[in-house]
Amino acid sequence: MSETLPQALSLSETVAFLESAFPQMDAGGRTYHLVEVGPGLARMRMDHHTRHLRPGGTVSGPSMMALADYALYAAILATLGPVALAVTTSLSFNFLRRPGPAGLVAAARLLKLGRRLAVGEVHITTPDGDSLVCHATGTYAIPPER
Amino acid sequence: MSETLPQALSLSETVAFLESAFPQMDAGGRTYHLVEVGPGLARMRMDHHTRHLRPGGTVSGPSMMALADYALYAAILATLGPVALAVTTSLSFNFLRRPGPAGLVAAARLLKLGRRLAVGEVHITTPDGDSLVCHATGTYAIPPER
Amino acid sequence: MSETLPQALSLSETVAFLESAFPQMDAGGRTYHLVEVGPGLARMRMDHHTRHLRPGGTVSGPSMMALADYALYAAILATLGPVALAVTTSLSFNFLRRPGPAGLVAAARLLKLGRRLAVGEVHITTPDGDSLVCHATGTYAIPPER
Amino acid sequence: MSETLPQALSLSETVAFLESAFPQMDAGGRTYHLVEVGPGLARMRMDHHTRHLRPGGTVSGPSMMALADYALYAAILATLGPVALAVTTSLSFNFLRRPGPAGLVAAARLLKLGRRLAVGEVHITTPDGDSLVCHATGTYAIPPER
Repeated sequence: MSETLPQALSLSETVAFLESAFPQMDAGGRTYHLVEVGPGLARMRMDHHTRHLRPGGTVSGPSMMALADYALYAAILATLGPVALAVTTSLSFNFLRRPGPAGLVAAARLLKLGRRLAVGEVHITTPDGDSLVCHATGTYAIPPER
Repeated sequence: MSETLPQALSLSETVAFLESAFPQMDAGGRTYHLVEVGPGLARMRMDHHTRHLRPGGTVSGPSMMALADYALYAAILATLGPVALAVTTSLSFNFLRRPGPAGLVAAARLLKLGRRLAVGEVHITTPDGDSLVCHATGTYAIPPER
Repeated sequence: MSETLPQALSLSETVAFLESAFPQMDAGGRTYHLVEVGPGLARMRMDHHTRHLRPGGTVSGPSMMALADYALYAAILATLGPVALAVTTSLSFNFLRRPGPAGLVAAARLLKLGRRLAVGEVHITTPDGDSLVCHATGTYAIPPER
Repeated sequence: MSETLPQALSLSETVAFLESAFPQMDAGGRTYHLVEVGPGLARMRMDHHTRHLRPGGTVSGPSMMALADYALYAAILATLGPVALAVTTSLSFNFLRRPGPAGLVAAARLLKLGRRLAVGEVHITTPDGDSLVCHATGTYAIPPER
């Protein structure tokens, strides 16, 4: 982002809103942990869990896709506040390397935050940050009534 | 697809392979049902289930993304047979309308089936086929050893 | 599209608008020809021309991308009329087969036409329609003031 | 990229190869200038030129798409050398801000360089780097015979 972005919610406020709004993300045991937010930024960890695995012990594509979407949503939420119930309008993923059966970390940042549309990208890496396993971009419609 | 595609597996053979290879897709209760395969084609139904929902009663994006990936994989599998353990390399989604809290149907068809890469698209509709809720495209690497 | 779409402009009206609004598309000689429009639909032909070629005699990616964008824009224009100066917000392309040094045809259709966002897909084929060389999806922001 | 990438060509060698292989990129006057390459990296400038403009004075989408594709190709070429005639298999673009009628700079970097597939992303900014106008990702098939 070129322009300076605001930050509407602290980390604990963002976590509290996500937990109340998306309780089903933790169905089957909590695995998504928001660990950092900033203006236009969010970092989310996904713990290792058998429900995120595919045969061969790799993390499933849908688990990575859910992580990317959730992290981007958190970045928008932290930046704009809970008044903005953004709606995902598109998501694109490149799956780069098969991760092993371990947790992953998603670093989301907004590339644009317009009045009507937010666009962001996500880099999903192994927890040590050494291996990039997935790159995603997403667009979100911002409701006009905010 | 312009060229004529083969069909390696029948519907019941494709279902049997998917069930043995991806048992975790039905964790929490079976909701994905492959209902049709053909050369370069697959149709899959996802039942209504609380774990697929988002607040407001709409089906979650990750559930639709998993459905699209699974349906495309089934189309490749039915066309090439189980020797081809295709790997998802990219997926792109446009979310078009919020579906209500009901099942969905994914119609997957291959746009290209090369020696090394398969490309396909998916239209996800309400069960009556009246409303297109998501469009997806995906690319899959075909292992060289087949 | 599930819902019934209107049609605001005839073929000749759409052509006239495109020619006045995008004269630079034909810089170097006219090669883009809109041949059909309908509610949510447009079909555009791109003639064979040396400026569209890549080494080896294939049509260049940028020429196909311009064709897809132009055809989708024409579909929105024919459907909504010239009041809607839609802005391209995203485009995604899968290049499926290398076309030979000949013209191409793009068939664009809208998947969604909302108040604020239009989403469409394009199939680019050889002129005989036998070979699908590129698939594209695009999203366009519709100005609020219409 | 996590792993260490090689660099096969210097900047002048990469420029020389691009000029001989893609002379048509400069049809109408040279506007694309490769200004930097490194392992998995390339930076390319596109000069302001009337043929890159759209009504209203903004740079056209197709011109930005050509720039992104060309910069990613240069990054692969500099990294792997001219033996690798990579073929674009997919490109995705998010158009973030309308650039004014001026040049643009594309910074391309590879996210993955596998034996068969290269994946990269491009950030296109105004020449001062202050405003991000387009983000792109692309995948390229690497010929098996290298």
